[in-house]
Amino acid sequence: MANTDSVKVRVLSLNCWGIRYLSKQCPQRYAMIGDMLCKEEHDIVLLQEVWSEKDYLSLKKKLACSHPHSHYFKSGVIGSGLAIFSIHRIHDTFLFRYSLNGYPYMAHHGDWFGGKAVGMAVLNIGSLTANVYVTHLHAEYCRDKDSYLPHRVVQAWELQQFIRHTSAGADMVILGGDLNMHPQDLGNRLLRSYTGLQDAYLETAKFDGCEDGMTLIADNPFINKKELCPFEKGIRIDYILFKGSTKTDIYCDYMSTTKGSAPNHPFPYSDHEALTAGLRLETHTQTQSDRQPKIKDSAAGKLAALVDIVTEARTEVKVGLHCAEGMRYTATRTGVMGLALLVLELAIAAVPWLALGTEQPFPRTSFYLLAALCFAILLTTFLLYIFYTMELKALQGAEDQMRLAVGSLQEKLRGFPLAQPHNAPRRPPEGHEPSALAPEE
Amino acid sequence: MANTDSVKVRVLSLNCWGIRYLSKQCPQRYAMIGDMLCKEEHDIVLLQEVWSEKDYLSLKKKLACSHPHSHYFKSGVIGSGLAIFSIHRIHDTFLFRYSLNGYPYMAHHGDWFGGKAVGMAVLNIGSLTANVYVTHLHAEYCRDKDSYLPHRVVQAWELQQFIRHTSAGADMVILGGDLNMHPQDLGNRLLRSYTGLQDAYLETAKFDGCEDGMTLIADNPFINKKELCPFEKGIRIDYILFKGSTKTDIYCDYMSTTKGSAPNHPFPYSDHEALTAGLRLETHTQTQSDRQPKIKDSAAGKLAALVDIVTEARTEVKVGLHCAEGMRYTATRTGVMGLALLVLELAIAAVPWLALGTEQPFPRTSFYLLAALCFAILLTTFLLYIFYTMELKALQGAEDQMRLAVGSLQEKLRGFPLAQPHNAPRRPPEGHEPSALAPEE
Repeated sequence: MANTDSVKVRVLSLNCWGIRYLSKQCPQRYAMIGDMLCKEEHDIVLLQEVWSEKDYLSLKKKLACSHPHSHYFKSGVIGSGLAIFSIHRIHDTFLFRYSLNGYPYMAHHGDWFGGKAVGMAVLNIGSLTANVYVTHLHAEYCRDKDSYLPHRVVQAWELQQFIRHTSAGADMVILGGDLNMHPQDLGNRLLRSYTGLQDAYLETAKFDGCEDGMTLIADNPFINKKELCPFEKGIRIDYILFKGSTKTDIYCDYMSTTKGSAPNHPFPYSDHEALTAGLRLETHTQTQSDRQPKIKDSAAGKLAALVDIVTEARTEVKVGLHCAEGMRYTATRTGVMGLALLVLELAIAAVPWLALGTEQPFPRTSFYLLAALCFAILLTTFLLYIFYTMELKALQGAEDQMRLAVGSLQEKLRGFPLAQPHNAPRRPPEGHEPSALAPEE
Repeated sequence: MANTDSVKVRVLSLNCWGIRYLSKQCPQRYAMIGDMLCKEEHDIVLLQEVWSEKDYLSLKKKLACSHPHSHYFKSGVIGSGLAIFSIHRIHDTFLFRYSLNGYPYMAHHGDWFGGKAVGMAVLNIGSLTANVYVTHLHAEYCRDKDSYLPHRVVQAWELQQFIRHTSAGADMVILGGDLNMHPQDLGNRLLRSYTGLQDAYLETAKFDGCEDGMTLIADNPFINKKELCPFEKGIRIDYILFKGSTKTDIYCDYMSTTKGSAPNHPFPYSDHEALTAGLRLETHTQTQSDRQPKIKDSAAGKLAALVDIVTEARTEVKVGLHCAEGMRYTATRTGVMGLALLVLELAIAAVPWLALGTEQPFPRTSFYLLAALCFAILLTTFLLYIFYTMELKALQGAEDQMRLAVGSLQEKLRGFPLAQPHNAPRRPPEGHEPSALAPEE
């Protein structure tokens, strides 16, 4: 490789657990986080769960010198909770809200109100363009019976689509965030295989942090150990992922996580561990065609694996479709019953002989209470019907896109040795092509 | 220009006005549209307001031979109404739902239920990659007092963001749809200036169609002439826009619209006119650096104009913010009054002496009716509060992004003669750069 030029970028990702008045030691922890960021001067800081804009603004004030550029992504009722701080100028930002994000009536889980999304910022690092993404997917409350799994799979699908389609012009892609998925979970495999993003923990030359790179650990005093069960020591659900481009190679020189405590403080920064990755970007003057031969070796195998993963995701979305259809049916049936009850009540009140021959009129108190109940049922089931219809549309939409993608990937796979040399020089491997076709980095 | 290679693409865009049981002659018109598309064999067909999936499926069946590739974009409660048919294989699709799209309680306008969005399809035309977009923005019901203007401006902002960020890898970008904006409306100027998209009607070498390219005309029998007032003859709100890339130049050889009637049929295809554009794409072997000198001539002027347009859009969004804040305040106040009324009622019922010294107890009928009213007020205002909060977040988010964009553009403008040569060779002019910097096509 001739004529390389190297750029170093230090990235931090942290789920701040910043629910005002509910998260423990929230103001103190924000102060600690601010001090640490000010001191450490990472190039890029990706924060999640900064639920209050006030907390973002106080961090922004504190980091005005160390990180003059920042953006807070607004979405949903509460906000997306996503924030980015940068040493380098942010030229452009864009937000993609996931089409599915739990249920509004599951208020105790609260995900729906957060308006989960993926935020993108375009930075210029020297003469290079970096697309930086920060996201937070739907939480997993019960791994054995995870009713949110189809929603999270659709979020992972939309995340990979968003990154793939928006990163074609970037020299460097960085994604940081709380994916709420274990390393080998379906959504994670889908994301990494389709985009070609590499996991900093798996790629790093040096690692200093929790065992197995865990980011939600039993040793963290804010963690309820029972909730981690059956993973006694902890789980890895926060990530820093990265990739280069046809013009650049990217390496992870080191990675670290906090270990359930913060230096010189009585408690840690958050219930999640903070991740830091030291990335090194090398630009080269090799053209794409020089590097083309590398592609063919393993691309067909990767493509076949990708087809399997997308098919698996499609199956999961179909399960979600089945559930949503069932819930919409239940809402409809309940609504019809409420309507029937109301009609019956009105009929009894209007036609006295219907009241089984008794001379007594319909008691007024019961009449009004029953009528109020019927109206409440009708209104609730109507709102639920609308909500489930939107959920169904979103699931069907994702399933359609997956079917189309599988068809397209399979066609590529069939004609692989023939089609590749014809099309390859015109299209960049990332962006519009699955990165199973991307050069090995 | 040496070594050019030419590809021709014929594109149709039509708002089908496909509301089952409500739109006039809906099944007959779909049959006519199907026959016409089958016969005309456009390369790409972009349809809007295909509200029923059944209608899409029957069109798909009819066009199986002429247009073997198609996609229907699902979103919202009813659907997005967007469909694409293509002669060329669709490799990938992606949907972006606008964050704002009217109000659910404005059910007679219906836009909110449609889940308005922009759909993208990636096609390979020969060896070229075409990104094709289809969209439908919020309708304008009253031009003088357009309460949806901030929503439509935010939609235009998100549309330009989506196109700019997803089209960096494309050789050809085509957008077709019903923008519900006149040619010089703010959103339209924003879209064209920022993306560098060109208007087929303005660029075409030959034109055959309605006067001034109008697409909603008084001569169309489905049109209520009063609604067009003060534009007696009609308005132009449907568009085909296009752009090439640094590797390709694109030209519009001809354009046509229907003229309020369909050949050999008693009524037209829709209440909108259909648009057809004949595009010609020429690839060249000139490198970007050869073409660079062209850029500088007018880029600074374009950039300054873009800053003005984004600032104008920001002002409009601020107006929307002010309105939304007012509506949220009204909802809150009404909710508090409902709560006060409920408390007062309960107090009167519980403590008899409160009832102004009368011996009569609280009449039961009145008690229940009043309680039901209070609960209805509380529920409605709570839902409205949540809705307006989401609207506020979306407006604030767009305003933040616009402020950041203006800052970035202004910085570019200040350092224009110096910064340009340093950065230009690394970054493609479209995609991550405002197309005010793009080469003149």
